[in-house]
Amino acid sequence: MSIYVKMKLFNSDNGEVLAMQFSIQKDYLKQAVQEVMYAVSNKPAHPILSGIKLTADANGVTLTGSDSNIVIQRIIPAIADEKVVVQIYKEGSAVIPGKYFSEIVKKLPSDMFIEANGDFHITVQAEDIITTMNGYNPDEYPVLPQMDKSSTVSLPGEELAEMVKQTAFAVAKTDSRPILSGVHISVQGGELSLAATNGQRLALRKAMVEAGWKNGCIVPGKTLLDLAKLLQHSNPVKMAVSENYILFQSDSLLLLSRLIEGNYPNIGNLFPKESKSVIVSNRKDLLLGVDRASLFASEWRHNTISLAVKNGSQLKIYSKSTAVGKIEEIQTIELLDGEEELEIMLDGRYLLEALKAIREEKVVLSFHGSIRPVMVQPFGDDKHLHLISPVRM
Amino acid sequence: MSIYVKMKLFNSDNGEVLAMQFSIQKDYLKQAVQEVMYAVSNKPAHPILSGIKLTADANGVTLTGSDSNIVIQRIIPAIADEKVVVQIYKEGSAVIPGKYFSEIVKKLPSDMFIEANGDFHITVQAEDIITTMNGYNPDEYPVLPQMDKSSTVSLPGEELAEMVKQTAFAVAKTDSRPILSGVHISVQGGELSLAATNGQRLALRKAMVEAGWKNGCIVPGKTLLDLAKLLQHSNPVKMAVSENYILFQSDSLLLLSRLIEGNYPNIGNLFPKESKSVIVSNRKDLLLGVDRASLFASEWRHNTISLAVKNGSQLKIYSKSTAVGKIEEIQTIELLDGEEELEIMLDGRYLLEALKAIREEKVVLSFHGSIRPVMVQPFGDDKHLHLISPVRM
Repeated sequence: MSIYVKMKLFNSDNGEVLAMQFSIQKDYLKQAVQEVMYAVSNKPAHPILSGIKLTADANGVTLTGSDSNIVIQRIIPAIADEKVVVQIYKEGSAVIPGKYFSEIVKKLPSDMFIEANGDFHITVQAEDIITTMNGYNPDEYPVLPQMDKSSTVSLPGEELAEMVKQTAFAVAKTDSRPILSGVHISVQGGELSLAATNGQRLALRKAMVEAGWKNGCIVPGKTLLDLAKLLQHSNPVKMAVSENYILFQSDSLLLLSRLIEGNYPNIGNLFPKESKSVIVSNRKDLLLGVDRASLFASEWRHNTISLAVKNGSQLKIYSKSTAVGKIEEIQTIELLDGEEELEIMLDGRYLLEALKAIREEKVVLSFHGSIRPVMVQPFGDDKHLHLISPVRM
Repeated sequence: MSIYVKMKLFNSDNGEVLAMQFSIQKDYLKQAVQEVMYAVSNKPAHPILSGIKLTADANGVTLTGSDSNIVIQRIIPAIADEKVVVQIYKEGSAVIPGKYFSEIVKKLPSDMFIEANGDFHITVQAEDIITTMNGYNPDEYPVLPQMDKSSTVSLPGEELAEMVKQTAFAVAKTDSRPILSGVHISVQGGELSLAATNGQRLALRKAMVEAGWKNGCIVPGKTLLDLAKLLQHSNPVKMAVSENYILFQSDSLLLLSRLIEGNYPNIGNLFPKESKSVIVSNRKDLLLGVDRASLFASEWRHNTISLAVKNGSQLKIYSKSTAVGKIEEIQTIELLDGEEELEIMLDGRYLLEALKAIREEKVVLSFHGSIRPVMVQPFGDDKHLHLISPVRM
């Protein structure tokens, strides 16, 4: 970057003390600002938390965003992708208004020159465009809680992101039981397990890991979905847990989340033992059929659709609205083991979301009678399952 | 289409009287349903207006959607793009629930077979998927008002769509003066003119046409924006006006809109006569600069930004928020005629929308003093202009 000309505009010839000064490539800054903004609340508990803390030091530029429940930190190293992306002229830090900073970084046409003076007025310049913002004193920004990293679990970022996407959607959306708004994360016998339930349906995903902690913890579902968006790469992520926090850390990212207090319900006894009938279907066909059948299901409190196995070879999917009409379709079952005739009613949205969380071509549906949950699994994978309680009429 | 097999399921062997029966290609139906749904209200004045009227006759299949202010009709001819897209087995009509019909048409995998029985129960079938909906008696559907088509204005659909997009955004969004929520359409001296204003800014676009009506009329801005979406082709559109309605008609589309009653203000005397200074700028650079400057303008009631001409060659664009900060940038003026120093404050959103409505590379800004409107025009085109009142501090 050629920033010599800009330097002249901003150097401290006038005797003013600079708190921080660096130049940075637009694309890297834009991406990092977007990511830490996940942690910045629209209604911060304290004004300074509406800001992003910028720290320029030997590591490069570190951005921190937080509210009372979550901290996200991103490091932009001086050299990335074999290019110089940051040049530090004065190490230091400042807190810049987050919303305005993120908007202007998107709208500026080119690489930026950023400096803070002793009063934490922050100037962002690109070409002939000069923006000045009133910042905050970084000494007043909350410090990160200390975490014991002696006992961690590590796995590839993409894999953790996928586990989150396959479970976190199933948490409770209402506030009546705060514990169920979180995902239960535990490690046992070398197996990391993520589980979420709202009482009517449950999603569970396991993966082999080395070592781990003893106890489980409950992490807000929304926080994990944000994490999943930040982990679109294969770099390893380390997880560490303390009494009140969970830490996720990769080479350039740190996410720290407050835990939800309380005891997660024992989900072990929810899994039905003996199935009456098991079928294998094409996942995509079933998904499209359930989506169509949901058309007339919204009249019901539970978005009720019916699944019926016929003659051991056909699956009838249907829904009915007395006022508007009905829809039914017949799909061919690929394999069946057990009873050849059965019928069950369930919430079409729950079945749809379970089928969307599965990536495999074929799914296994296990039926355990009209009042016990239906189990949905990818064919040939016992580390991933969904339970959906039937709707009783 | 091979629909012989489906026919067998539906023929009237059981002695039932059919009200209508046809098969139709999915893509054509989907597109047409989407278009007529613009006219179907979520809260219809009468239940039957929640439906789409289907008519199968020698012309093909005609779909009609309407509420009390607008009617949209689309004809799907039997043969389109040199393919057979509709096959009629029984001419007739029926009214089908619009929202459900449009959703199921999107979700069905293939071409459809549609029939209505004597009770107006309508069946839509694709492959092994059968949907039945309770329809309405088409005899109860409102008939279209008769229009005198002896005096019409005609122009290419794309051109009318463009004229609408360049003006209708400028109508008043509040209900305080209903007349200003409409676009004034008039023809005078072989010139078709569309004008819209909310009292603070005005957009005007003219085009040469043959013949025309005597008087102007006021058409709801929202209706015209819907029309613009439906006119993405070069086929000619005819316009005819009656006391209460305006009709837009092309070969496959009909849109009829109720007019807004009242006298449109005389906009002729709004245009400033003598400019103090005229500048020519690059439209895109100016647009991006105004967008950036608007960042700190939202603190003000009018989204106030400042434009200042400096030394006859520079344009300074800036905004300031006492609480957060300020932004300023300098752009080079390409041409200037008149005073070399001036400054004006105006609503950044209005300037942004005017610049977005212009497609040309260069724009002309004319200044007429700090309390008279700024005029924005494409360079070298006097058939298109925008006026923006300054903000007084």
